[in-house]
Amino acid sequence: MADDVLTIAGTAFTSRLIMGTGGAPSLEVLEQALRVSGTELTTVAMRRVDPTVKGSVLEVLARNSIRVLPNTAGCFTAGEAVLTARLAREALGTDWVKLEVVADERTLLPDPVELLEAAETLVDDGFTVLPYTSDDPVLARRLEEVGCAAVMPLGSPIGSGLGIRNPHNFQLIVENAGVPVVLDAGAGTASDAAFAMELGCDAVMLASAVTRAQDPALMADAMRRAVEAGRLARRAGRIPRRFHAEASSPLAGRAELDHREMPAFQTF
Amino acid sequence: MADDVLTIAGTAFTSRLIMGTGGAPSLEVLEQALRVSGTELTTVAMRRVDPTVKGSVLEVLARNSIRVLPNTAGCFTAGEAVLTARLAREALGTDWVKLEVVADERTLLPDPVELLEAAETLVDDGFTVLPYTSDDPVLARRLEEVGCAAVMPLGSPIGSGLGIRNPHNFQLIVENAGVPVVLDAGAGTASDAAFAMELGCDAVMLASAVTRAQDPALMADAMRRAVEAGRLARRAGRIPRRFHAEASSPLAGRAELDHREMPAFQTF
Amino acid sequence: MADDVLTIAGTAFTSRLIMGTGGAPSLEVLEQALRVSGTELTTVAMRRVDPTVKGSVLEVLARNSIRVLPNTAGCFTAGEAVLTARLAREALGTDWVKLEVVADERTLLPDPVELLEAAETLVDDGFTVLPYTSDDPVLARRLEEVGCAAVMPLGSPIGSGLGIRNPHNFQLIVENAGVPVVLDAGAGTASDAAFAMELGCDAVMLASAVTRAQDPALMADAMRRAVEAGRLARRAGRIPRRFHAEASSPLAGRAELDHREMPAFQTF
Amino acid sequence: MADDVLTIAGTAFTSRLIMGTGGAPSLEVLEQALRVSGTELTTVAMRRVDPTVKGSVLEVLARNSIRVLPNTAGCFTAGEAVLTARLAREALGTDWVKLEVVADERTLLPDPVELLEAAETLVDDGFTVLPYTSDDPVLARRLEEVGCAAVMPLGSPIGSGLGIRNPHNFQLIVENAGVPVVLDAGAGTASDAAFAMELGCDAVMLASAVTRAQDPALMADAMRRAVEAGRLARRAGRIPRRFHAEASSPLAGRAELDHREMPAFQTF
Repeated sequence: MADDVLTIAGTAFTSRLIMGTGGAPSLEVLEQALRVSGTELTTVAMRRVDPTVKGSVLEVLARNSIRVLPNTAGCFTAGEAVLTARLAREALGTDWVKLEVVADERTLLPDPVELLEAAETLVDDGFTVLPYTSDDPVLARRLEEVGCAAVMPLGSPIGSGLGIRNPHNFQLIVENAGVPVVLDAGAGTASDAAFAMELGCDAVMLASAVTRAQDPALMADAMRRAVEAGRLARRAGRIPRRFHAEASSPLAGRAELDHREMPAFQTF
Repeated sequence: MADDVLTIAGTAFTSRLIMGTGGAPSLEVLEQALRVSGTELTTVAMRRVDPTVKGSVLEVLARNSIRVLPNTAGCFTAGEAVLTARLAREALGTDWVKLEVVADERTLLPDPVELLEAAETLVDDGFTVLPYTSDDPVLARRLEEVGCAAVMPLGSPIGSGLGIRNPHNFQLIVENAGVPVVLDAGAGTASDAAFAMELGCDAVMLASAVTRAQDPALMADAMRRAVEAGRLARRAGRIPRRFHAEASSPLAGRAELDHREMPAFQTF
Repeated sequence: MADDVLTIAGTAFTSRLIMGTGGAPSLEVLEQALRVSGTELTTVAMRRVDPTVKGSVLEVLARNSIRVLPNTAGCFTAGEAVLTARLAREALGTDWVKLEVVADERTLLPDPVELLEAAETLVDDGFTVLPYTSDDPVLARRLEEVGCAAVMPLGSPIGSGLGIRNPHNFQLIVENAGVPVVLDAGAGTASDAAFAMELGCDAVMLASAVTRAQDPALMADAMRRAVEAGRLARRAGRIPRRFHAEASSPLAGRAELDHREMPAFQTF
Repeated sequence: MADDVLTIAGTAFTSRLIMGTGGAPSLEVLEQALRVSGTELTTVAMRRVDPTVKGSVLEVLARNSIRVLPNTAGCFTAGEAVLTARLAREALGTDWVKLEVVADERTLLPDPVELLEAAETLVDDGFTVLPYTSDDPVLARRLEEVGCAAVMPLGSPIGSGLGIRNPHNFQLIVENAGVPVVLDAGAGTASDAAFAMELGCDAVMLASAVTRAQDPALMADAMRRAVEAGRLARRAGRIPRRFHAEASSPLAGRAELDHREMPAFQTF
């Protein structure tokens, strides 16, 4: 898989699993999970981090050669998010930012208007912007149009573990996107991550699914393999869905089976 | 994962991916896919194989140290299946048999009455019987009661690629089974295999999904990782599903989020 | 809808909603719900009824001109079920029987072998047999072959309210059936009933969904309309599913929209 | 059901089915379908209608006492939509408008930014605004905050017949809404309409599902009953979903069944 790299804003990644750092019971558990996950890019919430403190998440990332991706978690307006991104750039020396502008604490869903405004401002300011967005294909396109380096639609609310609630929207986003599409939020287990990749996502971002699992390192391992599996399956070209059976071992002399493809049949 | 072995009838397997051999465009492609899949147990349709012929599937399995599991594909009655199993035992020197007794060629669905009768006869005759069955939890239990070494419920019709149509039935089968449960038929892509393992299946059996994929070896690799991922995720203990969001990075000083678990909420 | 009758064993019904009587908080509530439902055929559990007692369910049915359909609820073997059916015939003067032979009390799922045996015996004995069965298309066919007057596959376990877990199996049953197909068990709300009819079921049977609803009469009304709605929708010929949009109001002079039918596209 | 009225902006409706007029093969077929549907509120695309022409859709609505709801179909910017709404007000003498601002012709999905801007402008201008929106709960809330009289989230793209792709979002919208929530777009058959009402929608809006059905009048009848059924079911209080069975007819002397509610169990 070494030649199948993910490229975001000109930077190549071998791993297609982007990790978050929230929710882990300890720094030790977090570090182990990050290592096992194979991630090369990990978000850090700027509002929670004091970069001058020893033993921080940033040190964990540094000693494991994982690129830090500051996020603007906890911002409710474009203004807050832009300010947070700028502070992050100064403190961490990176112009990459995972842009989050949420509407409320109950759903943590992005505010489309504030998000788009913040994205535009930050792009103009020279940032490489990776926005956390709803699964609305139109909003995803608008974010790409203002210059975002990727789009990161949610599968379901942060921490809900509900997986991808609307695969159809993901298919619509993927078929139109000219930048990487990253599932962000909602993955609860390995098959969710594999499914995202099969739908055409370029990467998967998750935190709680690993950090809050009963065994975070084991789940990190599961997620690493699931993302690889989903990516490989997408590239391998799956068999079409059929309404009736098709024998894997047709027997000579027997009548031909029903090979019909049902036009737009629904399997519910 | 070396210590997490699958044991069927006292025999331990490191791989939880059981492969079939039908549908491959050539023996060379099949051999490559089997190798990449890491499988240690592979079915062969007795009605198609002449064990005395050179260059056969059996040779491929032998030189890759893959255990052969003869199946009774193409049998429509208990009598046919029992006869085929006995011929396989003589020809191949194994008393393991993947028991298939199907009702018709259109759906290739198992006939519950003939299947149960054949299973009972073969168990009495000293066979290690692995039956291909519907996802009916009662039939799965009956098959275990007559002495089958595993149960292999279908997710959807053979070759359909429709995945697991009724996860609820799989959950009911798994919670009652005292023998390994193997998803047999229906997997179309990697996430289907991962999902089966997350539901508690002990292994996944598939053929067409790999042999008929556009790139069989790539899909074999995907399936190997997906089965591993699903197994690890099951063992890791996934996060519960929540109706609302839960911040992975709660911010000090903010109001408490909604952590309520919805009683039996439905996420459709 | 008067000309669109349901015919079972030569008897015509205008209503396609078959009701059960278990679970109601009182006979009064039950009677009201049955009236509102418009049902013309209602099951009664023989093991619970003493036909000689005044104020019984049987009186309720009689005074509302609802045909009684005795069932064999609580029977675990073919022998018990056959005996119960014969007692019902003597006591109630009907040779119709809703045949239930369940495997255990936890799932209340039918036992396929005992069920088929009981069905065959009762048909030979002159009964009009309506069997409660799993959603296995093969078992449904076998029941029809031994002479059952209808097949009544379950959508999900009795009282679970989980709806139709496997619509694909219902489609397979319907496309092959030469007798009426009745959804039996699993309907939890109105859309479940409508969906069953759209899949091609000829009728819907339910009890708990109405009798245990917070307002049984209101839910009975809902179910009556839902069954009618689903039946009409099936007959009306629904629009095909499309991956992209199709304007209901195309505007002159605008470019043609995408009308492509996706071959076997999956909408998850 | 006469006392269970839908109130939008102070106006009461007995019917909860809002119809569109596009897609019908003829005015005669349309009129028959509208009559059968029982609708009291029907949209008309301003860009297609010349109110001065005889034999128009407007005449059909007038002679059937159906309130006309002009829409802004075919508008791609806030400016276009505002202009179209004003023309409609002058021509038709109503300040109600179904506001549509779509992003492109392929998906016909609403543009969130243009939509919100147009809604705000029209509310300020005294219109009663009913916006066609995505199923984003945040956007729905924003539209309510700027003064819209209802919100009309799409279940899936216009004319796709894919039903409600993301019921979870509908649940989130409904639990927060202070104005009526109307499913707009996506319903393909009766169970889709019933399901929308069960999720808590106050009404259902559809056009193609009826006008393009093989028999529009029959489907109109189906939809009318389905909306009623879903509404009644919502009010009736459905039974909870259970993982295991619950006998509708528990038998005296038998062991207690499993009544456990699974906490947050997933039925897939």
